Amino acid sequence: MSTAGQVIKCKAAVAWESGKPLSIEEVEVAPPQKNEVRIKILFTSLCHTDVYFWDAKGQNPLFPRILGHEAGGIVESVGEGVTDLKAGDHVLPIFTGECKECAHCLSEESNMCDLLRINTDRGEMIHDGKSRFSINGKPIYHFLGTSTFSEYTVVHVGQVAKINPEAPLDKVCVLSCGMSTGFGATVNVAKPKKGQSVAIFGLGAVGLAAAEGARVSGASRIIGVDLNPSRFEQAKKFGCTEFVNPKDHNKPVQEVIAEMTGGGVDRSVECTGSIQAMISAFECVHDGWGVAVLVGVPNKDDAFKTHPVNLLNERTLKGTFFGNYKPRTDIPAVVEKYMNKELELDKFITHSVPFSEINKAFELMLAGEGLRCMIRMDA
Amino acid sequence: MSTAGQVIKCKAAVAWESGKPLSIEEVEVAPPQKNEVRIKILFTSLCHTDVYFWDAKGQNPLFPRILGHEAGGIVESVGEGVTDLKAGDHVLPIFTGECKECAHCLSEESNMCDLLRINTDRGEMIHDGKSRFSINGKPIYHFLGTSTFSEYTVVHVGQVAKINPEAPLDKVCVLSCGMSTGFGATVNVAKPKKGQSVAIFGLGAVGLAAAEGARVSGASRIIGVDLNPSRFEQAKKFGCTEFVNPKDHNKPVQEVIAEMTGGGVDRSVECTGSIQAMISAFECVHDGWGVAVLVGVPNKDDAFKTHPVNLLNERTLKGTFFGNYKPRTDIPAVVEKYMNKELELDKFITHSVPFSEINKAFELMLAGEGLRCMIRMDA
Ligand SMILES: NC(=O)c1ccc[n+]([C@@H]2O[C@H](COP(=O)([O-])OP(=O)(O)OC[C@H]3O[C@@H](n4cnc5c(N)ncnc54)[C@H](O)[C@@H]3O)[C@@H](O)[C@H]2O)c1
Ligand SMILES: NC(=O)c1ccc[n+]([C@@H]2O[C@H](COP(=O)([O-])OP(=O)(O)OC[C@H]3O[C@@H](n4cnc5c(N)ncnc54)[C@H](O)[C@@H]3O)[C@@H](O)[C@H]2O)c1
Ligand SMILES: [Zn+2]
Ligand SMILES: [Zn+2]
Ligand SMILES: [Zn+2]
Ligand SMILES: [Zn+2]
Repeated sequence: MSTAGQVIKCKAAVAWESGKPLSIEEVEVAPPQKNEVRIKILFTSLCHTDVYFWDAKGQNPLFPRILGHEAGGIVESVGEGVTDLKAGDHVLPIFTGECKECAHCLSEESNMCDLLRINTDRGEMIHDGKSRFSINGKPIYHFLGTSTFSEYTVVHVGQVAKINPEAPLDKVCVLSCGMSTGFGATVNVAKPKKGQSVAIFGLGAVGLAAAEGARVSGASRIIGVDLNPSRFEQAKKFGCTEFVNPKDHNKPVQEVIAEMTGGGVDRSVECTGSIQAMISAFECVHDGWGVAVLVGVPNKDDAFKTHPVNLLNERTLKGTFFGNYKPRTDIPAVVEKYMNKELELDKFITHSVPFSEINKAFELMLAGEGLRCMIRMDA
Repeated sequence: MSTAGQVIKCKAAVAWESGKPLSIEEVEVAPPQKNEVRIKILFTSLCHTDVYFWDAKGQNPLFPRILGHEAGGIVESVGEGVTDLKAGDHVLPIFTGECKECAHCLSEESNMCDLLRINTDRGEMIHDGKSRFSINGKPIYHFLGTSTFSEYTVVHVGQVAKINPEAPLDKVCVLSCGMSTGFGATVNVAKPKKGQSVAIFGLGAVGLAAAEGARVSGASRIIGVDLNPSRFEQAKKFGCTEFVNPKDHNKPVQEVIAEMTGGGVDRSVECTGSIQAMISAFECVHDGWGVAVLVGVPNKDDAFKTHPVNLLNERTLKGTFFGNYKPRTDIPAVVEKYMNKELELDKFITHSVPFSEINKAFELMLAGEGLRCMIRMDA
């Protein structure tokens, strides 16, 4: 019997308070409204951003909330006005959207949709300013418009990428956020040419996805830079050919890299969030043609600072958001890259837990263990 | 009778001391050595850089010296090993060179030749570390490898662009430096698309050449920004459609421009040398796709400073040197653009003096009058 148009009762992991373990509750999920889609989540993985907003240190605390934004699922039903998705479609919900109508969506270059650009403070749906989740009539806040730590969730159609139904959702699920961000930063923005050298600052999941982008692009040297030497062994699997720990040198790491490479790398991608790493990533690219790409999210009062001659000497500095992918237009093709074995994803998924043990995924991330923990909703 | 292989006696304007009027002297010009070319200069114009090194405030003083680097002439003779130029060729000497062999020359993107990149401190030829100019046996220093304030000069072959012999040298002469720098910054680096908006910071000769590049690219709005309101009237001839004087507003000019344009211009080109203008030029471009290009030469201790979120929001920041043109490979085609009336140059030449009155050109520039003063060597 179809559940379309009806309230669905299902399990969700609710964050009641900052920093406290999530608790699995029965929630009511209202039907999708205009331009909304209700999705049955099959797999979801944990990203740092979930942890930041759960921890809510330096972030706007908004509780009770259903977190989660890296996921794969199947459309259960669609609301009014939704024409390009139907029940049964395989989809990835994405934390940032594409309305296909604003100046950004119409620009070939931007993915920063005016309507659906990431909004970490909003806890309700855009359509009516209300939540679709409730427990005993009390609303529970949404997170990033995705809230994938629930068996069912409601998402704006502009935040839903329809993908190949043959793609394994327990793998391509990680393309919803971190992997696309890092991979796209390299292949869409830094764009190394075959044979060029690339430095990757920060060897977390995003940086390793950036390294995977460099490997796929045919980079000759992929220099991994991290303050944590334990990151190095793993990074080799992602194509890193050399490693630099800034702590091992008594001069700035940009100078170390310039010496290693006869003047600088051709491309660099910063995936740390550290302002010092951002400056080093810029200054370590070769004059004349070097391109540096910033991915990490900085602190509010950080200032990027460099001597302008570093720019005049024909270096390029860019930033990127979600790897410059337009979520609905571009992500289906990234899934195809995985299907064609042009892009590896399995190596990012280092752990797996049933939904009932979701707090273990938080523990692993807090302990810095592994890259992605896959959470199985049906288990 | 050919003068090849012989010392030539001719007139040159010698700067004996910083800030003192040049004096026209008879100098001896030695024959070109290996990979050198001796050029009969017909026209030369005055650029700010000549004035900076004549004034020598904050610059390394090197006297006596023959200044000058924007010029057009005819090859008189060539030294050993020069195969792609011969006596009679029409040429522009250029202050920065192209060896065609180093990593920069082999890169499609860079024009910052390792061997012949601009060097303001060198006063002799690279081949033997000696000057080709002398007066009574006493050497006179070269400037930028060009020293065009002389009826004859000796230049490294890598700094000589061979151009269409039908091009009027008294016009295309200005392509040796400032006009190519500004025009190239827009068409080669900022690359506005037809219909896009462009802000130009600084409406001196370089900025107006950047505006000319925006006009030629079909920009819909060209917003000129200058602290000096007297620059505005003239700028209209160069396609500027609107003007902003930062002094007329009590908020940062980047905010004024964002309001005028619904979020920011598509492209900006900074041609001031002011660090504050560099920061404003970056911050005034639209998020998602805006590109800012820095051209102005900053002070030694300036720091470019911005919040990294301005970058993450998908803005691009680049610098350029000589408009990213490779002097020998690209400048002949820019001359053709002038010949095909795709690019206007006549409007840059606001004054003209005979060589004997070269000091008048300095006076005009110091008084901020006009854009380029053409100095006629045969007059
Ligand atoms: N722009 C986007 O669209 C987007 C999307 C997702 C994540 N991010 C950001 O990307 C960054 C990386 O995410 P992650 O999940 O891989 O984080 P992570 O914490 O797993 O990895 C960051 C790594 O950087 C290293 N590091 C920190 N400071 C450093 C320094 N100064 N020099 C060298 N290495 C340094 C750390 O040791 C760590 O290994 C974060 O800032 C995150 O917020 C951005
Ligand atoms: N990168 C290169 O290859 C290259 C080559 C030649 C010249 N340049 C540089 O280009 C710059 C411009 O050269 P020019 O000959 O046109 O100089 P100019 O002095 O004729 O013009 C500069 C203009 O900028 C304006 N200005 C100064 N500060 C400003 C501010 N904060 N906001 C707005 N306007 C401001 C001035 O009023 C002036 O009108 C110089 O810094 C010069 O050194 C660079
Ligand atoms: Zn949009
Ligand atoms: Zn994420
Ligand atoms: Zn070279
Ligand atoms: Zn000049």
